[in-house]
Amino acid sequence: MADNKKMVEQITSMDTDFAQWYTDIVKKAELVDYSGVKGCMVIRPYGYAIWENIQKIMDAEFKRLGHENVYMPMFIPESLLMKEADHVAGFAPECAIVTIGGQNQLSERLIVRPTSETLFCEHYKNIIHSYRDLPKLYNQWCNVVRWEKTTRPFLRTSEFLWQEGHTMHETAEEAREETLRMLGVYAEFYEKTLAIPVIRGRKTEKEKFAGAEETYTVEPMMHNGFALQGGTSHYFGDGFAKAFGIQFAGRDNTIQYPHQTSWGVSTRMIGAIIMAHGDDNGLVLPPAIAPIQVAVIPVQQHKEGVLEKTREIADRLAKKFRIKLDDSDQSNGWKFSQYEMKGVPLRLEMGPRDIENNSCVLVSRVTREKKFVSLDNIEAEVEAALAQVHNELYERAAENLKNRTSVASTYEEFLDIAEHKSGFIKAMWCGDVECEDKIKNDTNGVKSRCIPFNEEHLSDVCVCCGKPAKHMVVWGRQY
Amino acid sequence: MADNKKMVEQITSMDTDFAQWYTDIVKKAELVDYSGVKGCMVIRPYGYAIWENIQKIMDAEFKRLGHENVYMPMFIPESLLMKEADHVAGFAPECAIVTIGGQNQLSERLIVRPTSETLFCEHYKNIIHSYRDLPKLYNQWCNVVRWEKTTRPFLRTSEFLWQEGHTMHETAEEAREETLRMLGVYAEFYEKTLAIPVIRGRKTEKEKFAGAEETYTVEPMMHNGFALQGGTSHYFGDGFAKAFGIQFAGRDNTIQYPHQTSWGVSTRMIGAIIMAHGDDNGLVLPPAIAPIQVAVIPVQQHKEGVLEKTREIADRLAKKFRIKLDDSDQSNGWKFSQYEMKGVPLRLEMGPRDIENNSCVLVSRVTREKKFVSLDNIEAEVEAALAQVHNELYERAAENLKNRTSVASTYEEFLDIAEHKSGFIKAMWCGDVECEDKIKNDTNGVKSRCIPFNEEHLSDVCVCCGKPAKHMVVWGRQY
Repeated sequence: MADNKKMVEQITSMDTDFAQWYTDIVKKAELVDYSGVKGCMVIRPYGYAIWENIQKIMDAEFKRLGHENVYMPMFIPESLLMKEADHVAGFAPECAIVTIGGQNQLSERLIVRPTSETLFCEHYKNIIHSYRDLPKLYNQWCNVVRWEKTTRPFLRTSEFLWQEGHTMHETAEEAREETLRMLGVYAEFYEKTLAIPVIRGRKTEKEKFAGAEETYTVEPMMHNGFALQGGTSHYFGDGFAKAFGIQFAGRDNTIQYPHQTSWGVSTRMIGAIIMAHGDDNGLVLPPAIAPIQVAVIPVQQHKEGVLEKTREIADRLAKKFRIKLDDSDQSNGWKFSQYEMKGVPLRLEMGPRDIENNSCVLVSRVTREKKFVSLDNIEAEVEAALAQVHNELYERAAENLKNRTSVASTYEEFLDIAEHKSGFIKAMWCGDVECEDKIKNDTNGVKSRCIPFNEEHLSDVCVCCGKPAKHMVVWGRQY
Repeated sequence: MADNKKMVEQITSMDTDFAQWYTDIVKKAELVDYSGVKGCMVIRPYGYAIWENIQKIMDAEFKRLGHENVYMPMFIPESLLMKEADHVAGFAPECAIVTIGGQNQLSERLIVRPTSETLFCEHYKNIIHSYRDLPKLYNQWCNVVRWEKTTRPFLRTSEFLWQEGHTMHETAEEAREETLRMLGVYAEFYEKTLAIPVIRGRKTEKEKFAGAEETYTVEPMMHNGFALQGGTSHYFGDGFAKAFGIQFAGRDNTIQYPHQTSWGVSTRMIGAIIMAHGDDNGLVLPPAIAPIQVAVIPVQQHKEGVLEKTREIADRLAKKFRIKLDDSDQSNGWKFSQYEMKGVPLRLEMGPRDIENNSCVLVSRVTREKKFVSLDNIEAEVEAALAQVHNELYERAAENLKNRTSVASTYEEFLDIAEHKSGFIKAMWCGDVECEDKIKNDTNGVKSRCIPFNEEHLSDVCVCCGKPAKHMVVWGRQY
């Protein structure tokens, strides 16, 4: 137990210093290492395995919906990035630029892709000629670079990994449907796979993607009440198509511009998992993406038969779950806190007396509740226990979201909440960017997260300026 | 049939112009599109699906052998790349360099990774302290950049996709074992998955990887007799460990340097598939990695019951194989040549008479042989037919390798073969780089491919200088 205590003490408590708690977890759960390149991280095996599990589930869903994976170049000639005015204005400040290739100064500078709309458009121009060529439903998994001043592993790094879907459609209606369909995929993924409830909504003009007509977002809440942009889906109309000269012969033989979407989620999702579910004992992983779903610990493993029986059970379970049997010489206490730190959703303990009773103990990472179960149906027991962990996580996060969401009817109230309470604030808004700017300024950083799909009518006037309200907005501080 | 003829005529014949034939295939089978960035390619869905199939099989094998995936930054600070002298000398000429980030001149230039030994070493220095931390068996799938003057899709592009394994071991012996084990994985993958026979061997000093002590290679032969470096595995000794100061406390409590390997294969593999198996009708894909394994074509599909029955069979097969049912309004001839062009290993045709007979026709893409088979055991029939296609491909490629491999005993003979015959040349070599240089010079490009594991004793003297021979070398021209 001495070891156990030592392990736990190594993490700063969330309430003491949330930022340090986060840093402690990413380091001590061996998710990342810092690298010599400012703002870039090494994703270690345990962190990368989470990303692989995310990719696998998401990629299957993209493909089920008819999307195909492609790979575009990582470099964008500067002139190509500049073809769409809003887009370049949005991204120019954060570009990494290659100026030398093969020991020669390049005649045209190359931007390391911050996102790939322009490359997809250049390609789509080559391959879209007729309505028969539509829709194009492409996606790519890749690295992108956005030069950041202040960085934090997973949440904000100069290089990150993501997927970017880029689709082209015959009609605006079809493209809008796709935009919302993919937002729905993200929302479902957060809720059903990551056990993180999200608010679905539309970004304001100020917060939308550079070059998009509409940006939709899913916004999960972190444990400390901060927001995080969980994933976005953009409707572009035919703006890029016009800028890039992408045209097709329609069903009526007229020449038309296709309508476009793009949508993406990144390794930031791992940051969301850490901050939505983690606690003072470390990481807590949703079972669906946990690299280890069950840590199997033989208790008194040197007693006759214990290790053999534990291994037999671990082998049985390994056919269906991701299992780690730890038969090292570390103490039980060390093992318990080690797998807690690493966020393994379920611990299975098995000692001589359990074996005598043909049973074992399952311990939930979330509630630490212990359950004695029979070995006869151990697969079903583990499956049920993992499902329960998922539900416990979801309920806990939903409770947090509920508890940390306030309503502000007056500006005084708004400022008071912003100063004294963490979390989201629901308040009415006139639709003017000036009020967004004023709020951000007056609160030292509270921004509009989104206009949620399920808007409520809180009052008739903007919480900030008192003019007639157009929308209810969810406001919050973000990572 | 008019359509069919038209399709086929679009490809340049291999014998007329092999390079143009290759270009025609990558474009017309829709594997790639050219991009506005010189030397970079767009990998289209059909091409990328091949890469995904390669990744899936290979990644499973890496993991089965205990390797874990990680992700390193894509940028290498110039000072880091320069830590190992041979390494930087090898890569400096082909680097793409980022000099601007976030609108500021960077204080240190960043190299876009051409390979990641230096990054792995920097990380390993942080995490390897004791023999208990070894071995480290890491791999990553990523993009890399090597600035190329002359480029060709898949074969030589400035950016390409690959995997790079980087491992650290307690002893030299263990690291050497790993080096050869992974070479074996590559060789088996070429032969058993891609149906391409390879020569396994060691690179000469001149041809080895920058910074390695030993480089091993698998060398497949292309249809026209050219060689292609199919995959390499390097033993580094402790050179990088010393340059980077990576040390660990050994079992005997002495401080030691670990021993290192790296190994990689890239999207060039797709170029090997095209050039080893393709023919004048287009691409020919080995069944294990073909995005479509069976093209199902209903014949006289408007006759009652044909489409229904064909769909029923396609659905049955789709549970086990990658199937494309083409019920479009294109002619049969168009469909046949379309799927030939795309290299689909097996075609299944089914018309009214076949259905009456409870049978269908299977056609091999390699031999075009037709086989009437019963629908009762269609899954087993298709499985056997795909296995046969694999074998046909392997046999054809092995035959080509055999036919295009010559033995040269004298230098005159060597020069004569190099000038008049395509393919590999087996000849004895003294071990001096001067002879390699002279041969390359005198033949306009014939280089040592490798010292094969199964060396033959052809004579006692070097084919070039007449001094005592140390090794038999396989020589050839390369892509």
